[in-house]
Amino acid sequence: MKPADVEIVLVRPSRPANVAAACRAMKNMGLRTLRLVDPPPELARPEARALAYGAWDLLDSAIRAPSLGEAVAASTLVAGTTGRPAADVLTPRSFAAEAPVRAGGGRVSVVFGPEATGLTREELDLCHLRVHVPTDPAHPSLNLAQAVLVVAYEIRLSADEPRVVPTADRASAGDLESALTDLREAMLAIGYLNPANPVAILAELRALLARAGATPRDMVLLRGLARQISWAGRQIARHPGGTG
Amino acid sequence: MKPADVEIVLVRPSRPANVAAACRAMKNMGLRTLRLVDPPPELARPEARALAYGAWDLLDSAIRAPSLGEAVAASTLVAGTTGRPAADVLTPRSFAAEAPVRAGGGRVSVVFGPEATGLTREELDLCHLRVHVPTDPAHPSLNLAQAVLVVAYEIRLSADEPRVVPTADRASAGDLESALTDLREAMLAIGYLNPANPVAILAELRALLARAGATPRDMVLLRGLARQISWAGRQIARHPGGTG
Repeated sequence: MKPADVEIVLVRPSRPANVAAACRAMKNMGLRTLRLVDPPPELARPEARALAYGAWDLLDSAIRAPSLGEAVAASTLVAGTTGRPAADVLTPRSFAAEAPVRAGGGRVSVVFGPEATGLTREELDLCHLRVHVPTDPAHPSLNLAQAVLVVAYEIRLSADEPRVVPTADRASAGDLESALTDLREAMLAIGYLNPANPVAILAELRALLARAGATPRDMVLLRGLARQISWAGRQIARHPGGTG
Repeated sequence: MKPADVEIVLVRPSRPANVAAACRAMKNMGLRTLRLVDPPPELARPEARALAYGAWDLLDSAIRAPSLGEAVAASTLVAGTTGRPAADVLTPRSFAAEAPVRAGGGRVSVVFGPEATGLTREELDLCHLRVHVPTDPAHPSLNLAQAVLVVAYEIRLSADEPRVVPTADRASAGDLESALTDLREAMLAIGYLNPANPVAILAELRALLARAGATPRDMVLLRGLARQISWAGRQIARHPGGTG
């Protein structure tokens, strides 16, 4: 995986100095694209820009997105970073090793949450896998820019190991979300989802499809299925008390 | 190699903020001992201390040394970091893997130079091996605290891989330097060293002995040899024109 193929997404960073330091870390490791969701307004000030010494181009060309979903829509693999280690959470090293195959040669986004709180549960649910930088359990809180550095460093090192990555046709995160939205409607229509909390099953489906390396063709198939299920749901609604 | 067995040595750091950030990075990765050679006086101010958020104990207990030689005297392996890649320079990953064996279970020092210039040639010569953090050649200059973080991160990860490290009796850097000082006198006495530039051969000898994992017994042997050579040199000086 070439560092230039990986995008960093900072969600609601609070300190301009951290965004600037993240830019420098990305630049050192050869990453080029930064996306910002709801960055602090002070980031536009000259003082903040000065902190991005040598990485101004990267800061100036940062792409702003109104939501995490839109920031990662074109990526085929979305990794969310978390301060909490867990069994299904990858280390940056495992992530860097696995990402090219899982992304099918497509664009990879690595998402970092706000300094104080990290990504929300909902934001992590939008990600296809989770990454945690190992730290001393007694002092686990890594600075935002330093977390970016470690992930970018592992991506850079993995790029130095030449290996054949099978180019596969992977659905983008945006297409996947569209299909999941259709499936959600469909499952609600047939009463399979709890309308008060449809998220859990959708998160499991998303994880399954991401792990499977779902293709654009799979998305067409799933959306067709979702339409059919919704149709069936409407039939049931019209004829309540039927055998459905 | 346990992170707590590795010391970080900052030589003439110029910015208190970088020292504070290095403390935080060390703390995150479980390193505990910082040595400072000629740190900036502003480091004692409350503003600087505030920047070491959560790592105050590490900053407060930092050990000041008047010279690099004294800072690393008790270590059995001294690694100097350099911004210049070269064939004989290790990556942080290789370093973390090799250090325990090369240190023989003794104390390891990793030395970082001033932000703007890095370690001098003479300071790197005092080190037993060199480490370079791989970066994008177009933007190689890593911030001091970020370089500390990457090295500390690799040390932490290597500690998670359990492996048997043979405990060996290694000469400390201080004993090695004492022996080299004696050898230098001896070689000058017999005209083997160019008095105007005795450093190059001594640096090669230091590298050789460090690579060999020289023991305290080896140091006794070398100092005895050095004394004998010096004696021979004095005999030659007393009887010029002899067969010596």
